[in-house]
Amino acid sequence: MADMRDLQQAVNLMHRLADAAAAAVLPHFRKLDTVDSKDDAGFDPVTVADRGAEKVMRSLIEEVFPEDGIIGEEFGMMRPEAERVWVLDPIDGTRAFITGLPSWGTLIALMERGEPVAGMMSQPFVGERFWTEGNGVFWARGEEREALSARPCPSLAEATLFATTPAMFNGARKAAFERLAAQVKTVRYGTDCYGYAMVAAGHGDIVVEADVQLYDVAPFVPMLAEAGGALTSWDGGRAAEDGTALAVGDPQLFEQVRAVLAGR
Amino acid sequence: MADMRDLQQAVNLMHRLADAAAAAVLPHFRKLDTVDSKDDAGFDPVTVADRGAEKVMRSLIEEVFPEDGIIGEEFGMMRPEAERVWVLDPIDGTRAFITGLPSWGTLIALMERGEPVAGMMSQPFVGERFWTEGNGVFWARGEEREALSARPCPSLAEATLFATTPAMFNGARKAAFERLAAQVKTVRYGTDCYGYAMVAAGHGDIVVEADVQLYDVAPFVPMLAEAGGALTSWDGGRAAEDGTALAVGDPQLFEQVRAVLAGR
Repeated sequence: MADMRDLQQAVNLMHRLADAAAAAVLPHFRKLDTVDSKDDAGFDPVTVADRGAEKVMRSLIEEVFPEDGIIGEEFGMMRPEAERVWVLDPIDGTRAFITGLPSWGTLIALMERGEPVAGMMSQPFVGERFWTEGNGVFWARGEEREALSARPCPSLAEATLFATTPAMFNGARKAAFERLAAQVKTVRYGTDCYGYAMVAAGHGDIVVEADVQLYDVAPFVPMLAEAGGALTSWDGGRAAEDGTALAVGDPQLFEQVRAVLAGR
Repeated sequence: MADMRDLQQAVNLMHRLADAAAAAVLPHFRKLDTVDSKDDAGFDPVTVADRGAEKVMRSLIEEVFPEDGIIGEEFGMMRPEAERVWVLDPIDGTRAFITGLPSWGTLIALMERGEPVAGMMSQPFVGERFWTEGNGVFWARGEEREALSARPCPSLAEATLFATTPAMFNGARKAAFERLAAQVKTVRYGTDCYGYAMVAAGHGDIVVEADVQLYDVAPFVPMLAEAGGALTSWDGGRAAEDGTALAVGDPQLFEQVRAVLAGR
């Protein structure tokens, strides 16, 4: 059980990290005039933005919590065996970023002894943030602030299902996703990190994805739990441990979705 | 050929229409706490927002240009035989709106003798607008303003393709879309009106959609033309005349895409 005061300090840092990432990333958003533009080192602008944001976030964490570990999408692991480990994805939804769509986000999570205990999604172009510090889920935009929760949806037939793209599923996972898609009310693609945030906020019911890494989903594990739902792998294990993620807003959906995915 | 001063006046009104629509719609965005919430008349909140926005836009048009016709998604046609006709879609991307995603928009177009000559897409939650008044394509957000243009992309193999959902294609159109999707570099779903705007802005190359109405695409016909591209039906006719839309940013893609869609 995480100490509440520690978590509050951690979330204060998350806001600073999100500010710093925004400053590094936003100058590059919608500035990709040609498909193949690269700098001298061969990096495209999105990679430049991604690496710049992760670097500045790593520096801030090392300054404030020098004993903590860091796992980042761009620069890998540092002290991964530490009691507390920060998990960073400066630009989740790279394809959305490249194509000018506002569904990408900066993801920041804090793990304690391997468990995500706090997390944030920041979308700096829209100017909104979703986060949990272990006592609820919150949304903020400028001076506006709201507490969020998932919505009831006891039946698959009434559920809205999110996934970033059908192309993320292959083989048996493709067949499993298609079984599920055929049973829900609505399927919405192109959701990226917003899919998880919108389930936590009560505007969708299920996210099912494959080909995901820990840093793609870590902030949403405590966020979904605090919102009243859950985020695991397809078989109920740790989210992303086998590359899969299953988020539900209403726990009553959990076994129904797992059964359909498993073909039971 | 439209008179430039008339178009400038029309675009001034478009900004007022977009402001009025935003005031009617935004109070309902992300306020849909339950899937089935309906008011006394049996309307769900998105329908209430949609109808409220169209009503206030119609009133403004009738006040400023009482001789003009109006075609709206919610309330149908009035004076459709007028020389100038306004085409309104208060919430394009209803599913995005319902699920809390910021990819919906308010679409406003002005047609002269059946041809769209000016158009605007407003996304009031993000706070940005894309429009053309017949002398370029513009983007604005608060005090920021930029001129936009499409990007070169002479080859399908380098192209990014947008579509709102693969579920919009059936039968032969589904097969045609899949042929095209297999030949491009990237396919991105969930784009709604942003797909067309991002091609006009040079962040994507192609939109191919089916099941679209005139009001879903009318503002983007002059916008794509002014950006250097084109927006037609799949066979090169008027956009949406047979329910299909094909937008390209680089005219060199036009025949290539049409050939693949036609199976040539």
